Amino acid sequence: MEFQSLEDIAARADTHPDEAARAAALARQNSLTKPPGSLGRLEELALFMAAWRGTARPRINRAQAVVFAGNHGICAQGVNPYPQAVTAQMVANFEAGGASINQLCRVNGADLSVVALDLDHPTADFTQGPAMTGAETLAALNRGAAAVDPGADVLVLGEMGIGNSTIAAALAAALFGGAVADWVGPGTGSDPAGLRRKIAAIEAGLARHRGLAPMQVLAALGGREQAAICGAVLAARRHRIPVILDGFICTAAAAPLHAADPGLLDHCLVGHVSAEPGHRKLLAALDKTAVLDFEMRLGEGSGAALALGILRAALECHNGMATFGEAGVSAA
Amino acid sequence: MEFQSLEDIAARADTHPDEAARAAALARQNSLTKPPGSLGRLEELALFMAAWRGTARPRINRAQAVVFAGNHGICAQGVNPYPQAVTAQMVANFEAGGASINQLCRVNGADLSVVALDLDHPTADFTQGPAMTGAETLAALNRGAAAVDPGADVLVLGEMGIGNSTIAAALAAALFGGAVADWVGPGTGSDPAGLRRKIAAIEAGLARHRGLAPMQVLAALGGREQAAICGAVLAARRHRIPVILDGFICTAAAAPLHAADPGLLDHCLVGHVSAEPGHRKLLAALDKTAVLDFEMRLGEGSGAALALGILRAALECHNGMATFGEAGVSAA
Repeated sequence: MEFQSLEDIAARADTHPDEAARAAALARQNSLTKPPGSLGRLEELALFMAAWRGTARPRINRAQAVVFAGNHGICAQGVNPYPQAVTAQMVANFEAGGASINQLCRVNGADLSVVALDLDHPTADFTQGPAMTGAETLAALNRGAAAVDPGADVLVLGEMGIGNSTIAAALAAALFGGAVADWVGPGTGSDPAGLRRKIAAIEAGLARHRGLAPMQVLAALGGREQAAICGAVLAARRHRIPVILDGFICTAAAAPLHAADPGLLDHCLVGHVSAEPGHRKLLAALDKTAVLDFEMRLGEGSGAALALGILRAALECHNGMATFGEAGVSAA
Repeated sequence: MEFQSLEDIAARADTHPDEAARAAALARQNSLTKPPGSLGRLEELALFMAAWRGTARPRINRAQAVVFAGNHGICAQGVNPYPQAVTAQMVANFEAGGASINQLCRVNGADLSVVALDLDHPTADFTQGPAMTGAETLAALNRGAAAVDPGADVLVLGEMGIGNSTIAAALAAALFGGAVADWVGPGTGSDPAGLRRKIAAIEAGLARHRGLAPMQVLAALGGREQAAICGAVLAARRHRIPVILDGFICTAAAAPLHAADPGLLDHCLVGHVSAEPGHRKLLAALDKTAVLDFEMRLGEGSGAALALGILRAALECHNGMATFGEAGVSAA
């Protein structure tokens, strides 16, 4: 799929969960050898997968993980203690297999790919003008959409980009309002002075870019990996592939879609709630409950890849357990 | 190992975490390509494993899971809607591979064994007298200890026993006090009248068995699978094998050890916090934070086996990630 404009986004997400498949999966859950409901959220995850995959017995034959990487002009405002070169260095680390996301994808059976988006050409500093033109935004969005394998059964999304916790807080503040300081956290490790610079930069950006539609907010304050995440989420929706979003930055990247149409993230789980303080507030704004809460704040898709293991476990129970009848176990 | 009396329990747990290994593991964590601390509880789990296994790079080559099953005379008080025959039927289901615990052990790579403890001879009704004699308790405790493979790197523990959420609440109330109603929940699915019968039975048991030492509480109010869990926890401690306890019933089974000596559960994680309402209160009494919170209430070791996947992921990151130096990534 390829988007022709930022305005046709909502119209292209024309798939919906299969309620008959969900009902059939629920009937199966209630026949399995356990008190009804006793697997808690594992049962909810199985029903979610059934509805989006359109089958009472959904399976994960292929799990795809994609990490999108971008660089950000906002780093000129001193918002991050790491040099911007770290983005490309970490991409090389992903490609060499040395990062956290590599280990988590291996242990949970996901095929990882990394999409580096024009790292040598950071977006513009949003305190001075829009971070991206409409054309740049659309191009990144289509790069994201093109990265999705239509044959995947689930899509794990992650990001890498020095400075992008500032991007995330800016997007969240622009889309959902509230005090900037409530959306800002230490990211990779800002000290109090760094935090003040992040807040000042975001406030300047918000003052410069007011009253924009959600996808225009993405262009003005976002970055290429954010736009790519939006594109990947939409492509997955087209193919009814459930998505596992990662933490604060990944969730904020997808938030413009929710602001454009609150149903657009219905096929998305959030893998974990980040230690980055803005994430809980963002999850509340999106009406999402994360799968895990491990005080992680690494990004790269790490929390989403970890949650994939839980999703696999939920489906192993759903598909592999015996029913009361099969096992000859007496019901209550 | 074999225990000769219920009084020599504490003296036999004479192993301690290796603080040098923990420090070496922390140094490694801080050298890996991520902001320090950004893997949150995954880092804590890696350090916990390092300390108990006595190595900076702990691995799980063999994960053992054991489910202990027993029957309970307290069922005569109408505390459970399921017939007591379900205990043996579920043991057969475990052996045939059809239960939740089978699926979760397969997906997370644990070898499962099931130990059925005299299912044809339920313990005595504790409203009428002690549930077990000292000799019965000791025998079950030694069955539990004997089930532990000294070559395991981690031990997942679970239980099955119709009526044993009443046993768990009775143990917790006797050991930690408070209103019986605060420890009692629906278990496999009691209705309000069933809940009242559970509370009445426990209050009668507490009135009959007062002022006992912790291991005598286990004999008076517990059951064979509870004693076996205590034995397995102690055997694992002897071999410095970290344990993952399951939910309310499994945690309550081990609680007499904590009451006897608060350090006796230091090598134990709790896999999940159960939807059974007494579990949060019990975790607070034991000063434990569960790994997962998925509103599960199945038992069988299901929450512990699910948490094993998280532990494996934590060690994959710990052992498999590149350091900043290896990857050529700039530090802050």
